[in-house]
Amino acid sequence: MTVFQELMTFQRETEALGQVMGRLSWDQETVMPEGACEQRAEEMGALDGVLHGRRTDPRIGEWLEMAQAPDEAGVRQLEEIRVEFERTLRVPAKLSADLARTTSLAHRVWAEARAANDYEMFAPKLSEVLDLTREKASALADGGDPYDALLQDYEPAATGAELEAMFGALRPRLVELRERVLGSERHVPAIDREFAEAGQMAISTKLAEAFGYDSAYGRIDKAVHPFSSGSGLDVRITTRTELCNPSNCFYSTIHEVGHATYEQNVDRAYLLTPLGRGASMGVHESQSRIYENQLGRSRAFTGWLYARMRETFGEFGVANEDDFYAAINRCHSGFVRTEADEVHYNLHVLMRFDLERDLVAGRLEVTDLPEAWNSRFSTDFGVDVDVPANGVLQDVHWSEALFGYFPTYTLGNVYAGCLNQAMRTEVSGIDEALAMGDTRPATDWLGEKIQQHGKRYLPKDLIARATGAAPSEAPLLDYLDAKFGDIYGV
Amino acid sequence: MTVFQELMTFQRETEALGQVMGRLSWDQETVMPEGACEQRAEEMGALDGVLHGRRTDPRIGEWLEMAQAPDEAGVRQLEEIRVEFERTLRVPAKLSADLARTTSLAHRVWAEARAANDYEMFAPKLSEVLDLTREKASALADGGDPYDALLQDYEPAATGAELEAMFGALRPRLVELRERVLGSERHVPAIDREFAEAGQMAISTKLAEAFGYDSAYGRIDKAVHPFSSGSGLDVRITTRTELCNPSNCFYSTIHEVGHATYEQNVDRAYLLTPLGRGASMGVHESQSRIYENQLGRSRAFTGWLYARMRETFGEFGVANEDDFYAAINRCHSGFVRTEADEVHYNLHVLMRFDLERDLVAGRLEVTDLPEAWNSRFSTDFGVDVDVPANGVLQDVHWSEALFGYFPTYTLGNVYAGCLNQAMRTEVSGIDEALAMGDTRPATDWLGEKIQQHGKRYLPKDLIARATGAAPSEAPLLDYLDAKFGDIYGV
Repeated sequence: MTVFQELMTFQRETEALGQVMGRLSWDQETVMPEGACEQRAEEMGALDGVLHGRRTDPRIGEWLEMAQAPDEAGVRQLEEIRVEFERTLRVPAKLSADLARTTSLAHRVWAEARAANDYEMFAPKLSEVLDLTREKASALADGGDPYDALLQDYEPAATGAELEAMFGALRPRLVELRERVLGSERHVPAIDREFAEAGQMAISTKLAEAFGYDSAYGRIDKAVHPFSSGSGLDVRITTRTELCNPSNCFYSTIHEVGHATYEQNVDRAYLLTPLGRGASMGVHESQSRIYENQLGRSRAFTGWLYARMRETFGEFGVANEDDFYAAINRCHSGFVRTEADEVHYNLHVLMRFDLERDLVAGRLEVTDLPEAWNSRFSTDFGVDVDVPANGVLQDVHWSEALFGYFPTYTLGNVYAGCLNQAMRTEVSGIDEALAMGDTRPATDWLGEKIQQHGKRYLPKDLIARATGAAPSEAPLLDYLDAKFGDIYGV
Repeated sequence: MTVFQELMTFQRETEALGQVMGRLSWDQETVMPEGACEQRAEEMGALDGVLHGRRTDPRIGEWLEMAQAPDEAGVRQLEEIRVEFERTLRVPAKLSADLARTTSLAHRVWAEARAANDYEMFAPKLSEVLDLTREKASALADGGDPYDALLQDYEPAATGAELEAMFGALRPRLVELRERVLGSERHVPAIDREFAEAGQMAISTKLAEAFGYDSAYGRIDKAVHPFSSGSGLDVRITTRTELCNPSNCFYSTIHEVGHATYEQNVDRAYLLTPLGRGASMGVHESQSRIYENQLGRSRAFTGWLYARMRETFGEFGVANEDDFYAAINRCHSGFVRTEADEVHYNLHVLMRFDLERDLVAGRLEVTDLPEAWNSRFSTDFGVDVDVPANGVLQDVHWSEALFGYFPTYTLGNVYAGCLNQAMRTEVSGIDEALAMGDTRPATDWLGEKIQQHGKRYLPKDLIARATGAAPSEAPLLDYLDAKFGDIYGV
């Protein structure tokens, strides 16, 4: 066995144990008995200890010094291993443990504070989390920019400055589009009656199949918050149903199928290796969002979905395909990111990016956060936040120290815009196929250009290889302008 | 932290990881996508490696030398840790690995050979497994009896000689009872029509509740081969349905509930410690069998079940409670252990015990096994084995090197006989309660006398403490004689 093989064998076991951890989370969110929480925490804690021990094993350093990659993919494997190993070693064990304990507590306090609509209840815990995060960021940054250092966990090679420029170009155009759309006098119908949950789930299963989800290597269950879980040969998704809002179920399913098929379609040669999963959070989100929006909410595909709705539920108060398309894409003012339409969504993310960057840099303190949030919200959304649960307390991320995660949501939408533009230039007949419920012309192209490569290329390079140009916000803006200009006649 | 606490903390993590391994098996048998097999094998292999590393960690030896137990339970904890540690160290790593690889292969070959009804196909692999088992047994025995050494994995402190004496006393009485029962001219009705699976599962859930299974700490799913899985706060069971045989579903459920409530009822103070599970395979089987047979197949309880059947399925061709009781306990000649009634069951086990003891001792070779099996079967059952799949190839155990496991099935029945006798002497009103579907007078007694103690006492001592006498086959024989003498009028 060569040193490279020895290292890869060790790494493969670590990856396999990482999959086991993912399976425990899936179990917890879907099938675990309610009384098992406490024991499960110990099981996951023990496994986490094992994983941490392996990820900091000094033999990795020795292997890395001597290993010779047999090919270009091997070079990338070693790079990935080296990056993760060095990052793990930079954070002192005590700091890691403090962060784990503090975020676990903070998560509970956040949930209580949100339920009580009481920011003061959460603020002291958030301060603790933020202090530890700053400490971690500066350990990782090694003299560089602390926020950039955090970003690398979610979007390798991205920088805050670069995102700031891109998001700065997005923001005024989105605010302007939002104002135009909400100012439109055109009536856009709403879907507004009850739809039996069994029918929703039956259509949901059809949607998953239509988008290429392979149930031989996964399964669909229900969960409070939909998610996708696992890599390789076992990638499971969850969805949810809401009695009066079937599109919540349908588009949650399509979104998670985007994440899941990405993992299912990674080249099997990378199975249980560092390259055997999605390139980044941003690229992952590009797949879930292009499946959900540019394909799933297109005029062509919603036409097909309208027919499935009529088959399953009979006449449901929406007169025709055009009305259904408009209803599915209806825009509305709202406080909550996860309920936002395509026009509003990125505005939510942009403000979080600016706020968390200021928090990490020390330009904003936890006590001043609600005011900063509310003031920015009023500026960008034209309405005032009513209660903290709809404002600064709405997202779980900061309680879990996930600083650097938010921007990948918008980056995913930006990538999706780029990919959609390139794909529609290169591939003909996409809409004709979508109108018949056939996503293959589109999903095959995404599979070939993006998904099969796993982490083989850095996110920016992967998008550039796929589209022939560096990522830019322009295609997303053009797409939104055209789509919502058309629906709202503005 | 004292040395004792340090050791127990380490052990607790190992126990937690062992629970994770159990959860992966549960997942595999119930919800895993079919395509995930290969990846799952790697995941379980990696976790197995971690567990083996922890179980042979030299620090355990150092801790054991210095640890002071704070109380009597602590003394038992240390004993359990020491026994497992010393046993694990006695088996060389290479032998362990060879056994794991060979049994994994042998299991597949066995399944193919059974399907093809071809013993010759299986024999070479069985020889390999047996050779490795003999090697392991002699490593464990350290000069003592090899079969006794293997037994300890399943029934601590049991010896082959002692079992031989007990089983020797059982065998002629069982053969004689079998002949009497099958010779009876009395007509015992059979249940013979289709029962919708949803109705079977609904009754099954009621049965689980009636026997005290707590769904807050577990769940019921379907699987090809019913099993119970997990300890402590997450103990899951599976059952199966057969369209024309509802009692398969009902008594599989009750049997697994016996195993599962045992685990659920262990004193929470022992959670995730070496004492935090059933005392042995034999004691475990005593709980599943007393739930299933002495309680579940009693005249009193079957009367209650008859009413549930009528509620769910209407009139189903069995005239009254007495006929239903007889039908549920109907005896029939048959080749297959897992389908055997209470009269035949132990005869199946006794022959496997004698044969496997001879195999391990080298008194019987693999090539001579089918003849030995068939000849013994004719003697004890009065009929000739028709095909190998109904004979020597029917059980999975030997392909998996589980030599020493079989006798615990009968030992469990023997213990169940002892417990039933003592319980009915001490507790009044058991049958009156069972007739109303209330198992609590019986299950509370078992919870107090057996289940709460986990592995706190050695099996024999535990039974003696509960019943006031050393385990003996006599109560089981008395119970079978009375019950089947009554049903068959012999």
